[in-house]
Amino acid sequence: MSHRQGILEALDEAGTAVSGQALASRFGISRAAVWKHIEALEAAGYEIERARSKGYRLVSSPDRLSAEALSGLLAGRRLGSNVVVLDVTRSTNSDALALGREGAPEGSVVLAEAQTGGRGRLGRQWESARGVNLYLSLLLRPPIVPAAAPQLSLVAGVAVAETLAAEGIACRIKWPNDVVLGGEDDASGTGSVPLRKIAGILTEIEAEADRVSFVVVGIGVNVNSTGEHFSAALAGRATSFLLETGRRLDRTALAARLLSRMEGAYEAFLTQGFGALASRWRALSVLEGRTVEVGGVGGQGQDVSRGTCIGIDSDGALLLEIAPGRVRRVLAGDVTVQGGYD
Amino acid sequence: MSHRQGILEALDEAGTAVSGQALASRFGISRAAVWKHIEALEAAGYEIERARSKGYRLVSSPDRLSAEALSGLLAGRRLGSNVVVLDVTRSTNSDALALGREGAPEGSVVLAEAQTGGRGRLGRQWESARGVNLYLSLLLRPPIVPAAAPQLSLVAGVAVAETLAAEGIACRIKWPNDVVLGGEDDASGTGSVPLRKIAGILTEIEAEADRVSFVVVGIGVNVNSTGEHFSAALAGRATSFLLETGRRLDRTALAARLLSRMEGAYEAFLTQGFGALASRWRALSVLEGRTVEVGGVGGQGQDVSRGTCIGIDSDGALLLEIAPGRVRRVLAGDVTVQGGYD
Repeated sequence: MSHRQGILEALDEAGTAVSGQALASRFGISRAAVWKHIEALEAAGYEIERARSKGYRLVSSPDRLSAEALSGLLAGRRLGSNVVVLDVTRSTNSDALALGREGAPEGSVVLAEAQTGGRGRLGRQWESARGVNLYLSLLLRPPIVPAAAPQLSLVAGVAVAETLAAEGIACRIKWPNDVVLGGEDDASGTGSVPLRKIAGILTEIEAEADRVSFVVVGIGVNVNSTGEHFSAALAGRATSFLLETGRRLDRTALAARLLSRMEGAYEAFLTQGFGALASRWRALSVLEGRTVEVGGVGGQGQDVSRGTCIGIDSDGALLLEIAPGRVRRVLAGDVTVQGGYD
Repeated sequence: MSHRQGILEALDEAGTAVSGQALASRFGISRAAVWKHIEALEAAGYEIERARSKGYRLVSSPDRLSAEALSGLLAGRRLGSNVVVLDVTRSTNSDALALGREGAPEGSVVLAEAQTGGRGRLGRQWESARGVNLYLSLLLRPPIVPAAAPQLSLVAGVAVAETLAAEGIACRIKWPNDVVLGGEDDASGTGSVPLRKIAGILTEIEAEADRVSFVVVGIGVNVNSTGEHFSAALAGRATSFLLETGRRLDRTALAARLLSRMEGAYEAFLTQGFGALASRWRALSVLEGRTVEVGGVGGQGQDVSRGTCIGIDSDGALLLEIAPGRVRRVLAGDVTVQGGYD
């Protein structure tokens, strides 16, 4: 153990202030050296109170993701059987896909403090500020056809939104799987409060034409980020748990709660199909009754559908009433809400 | 150029017999050395006639896949823009998937003389004898949803079956994409001639939940293999072009014809959807009107459907009449024909 780690543990064990002289004697170093270690610990995010007469007191530790703590919280569960926590990586989804190719078991999870090439849906960037948010990718091996993969994305959306709701924040889902706040009618009654995204999901699959080999569900949650963590492009469009509530969350504990909830939802999906989750998803949907436009992103041609959102079906397809009595199923696309938010 | 290559080219250019002394003088080696090179060329599959008075004459060259020849045959085409020919590889599909991840362009093709871990559908092995058959994997980047990937597998089935048919062999398709001979009523009228598989297709995809990143269509065709190339497990169930017709095909030329036909079918699929190919597929189907059982391989549960095959729909799903007037769509599965072949 380094002197720095030793000093940290001594402060943590003491619980009260420890004098610089006591620390210097204990580790056989000068008081100036102790002071340098204290400075370094502060730079790493530890909050340390300095009182001239009493010495140093550890006030708080930085929020660091801990593979050991997360594994402990998820002991015996199917999801979280194998936890990898990285400091910085390009993309946790890419890492989990690589694990999938290597044959890693279902329930393997990759988390990172930061991503240098975080990805969102449709090849978009996912901003991944360091040390404040969750970037979590989960490896699953469900016996499904590729056509059912979007349902798994919706299942994850339910787990994320319900987990955040349980922390006291009334978020909802914008189809297919943005987790958002806002969208309610505004005070003037003439429009809606703009949507602010708090979490997103990127599901990637490797499959034969008619059988999935494995799925990686990537979940990004803005937890403790503040305004300065977002680029100008996201200003007003992204939010975080801290920004909405003024409270910080321990990310490791949040990851454990999210994975536990995901496990329950995933098992319902496997045994009963998406239909078992559809009513929970609908209860969270922010689009119901809204007039929306969906730009095609897959399929032949680049159709745009416009209509009133009347829900999703038991396969997870968005149902749009495009004319009185005429309903179109939309399998994939980007949703824009007419005359309202976004 | 090595002496061996030089001797080969000299024989090829001459067209007639060349004396050992002439070859020895030309390359500045002994006649014994010439004789050793001739032996080595014979071992590599070249047929060389030896006439004491005249010397050596090149009778035939072994059938080797040639990237250069294939590229030349496909110049200016979309499929075959980038051809890789390997001697031995684990799996051309795995190689093409790796190319896809590295950003290789649509139309890249990987072929191999032999595969050590050739794969078929549902994790099965694909026997890959050396130097006699086609093992070809094609990288595509279609703007489709994962649910449409099985359609692409059917498109490839049409291209393979039509290409072989154009060579004079009446093969058909067993849903989803085995290319087979047999299946007609047998002479006694009480059953059907067993199916013999001549080609198979393994389509693999990497995708987001609602958008395909790329597709690899792997095509294995038994071209010039003979009985001794098949394991006991395949006896009576597999066949080849040579076994059926007594004729050998040049594999490079066959690959070029197959890729050209695939290109036409693929472009019809991209511009008009699978519906444009469905009638060609149906004309080749061996299952129409047969009573079949389909074991589920995807989806929740492992249902088995039994009924009379009445075709496929415009999405490529198999349509089974499971009771009078009741039709079930089957998206994926393994088909067994009742009271008949297979």
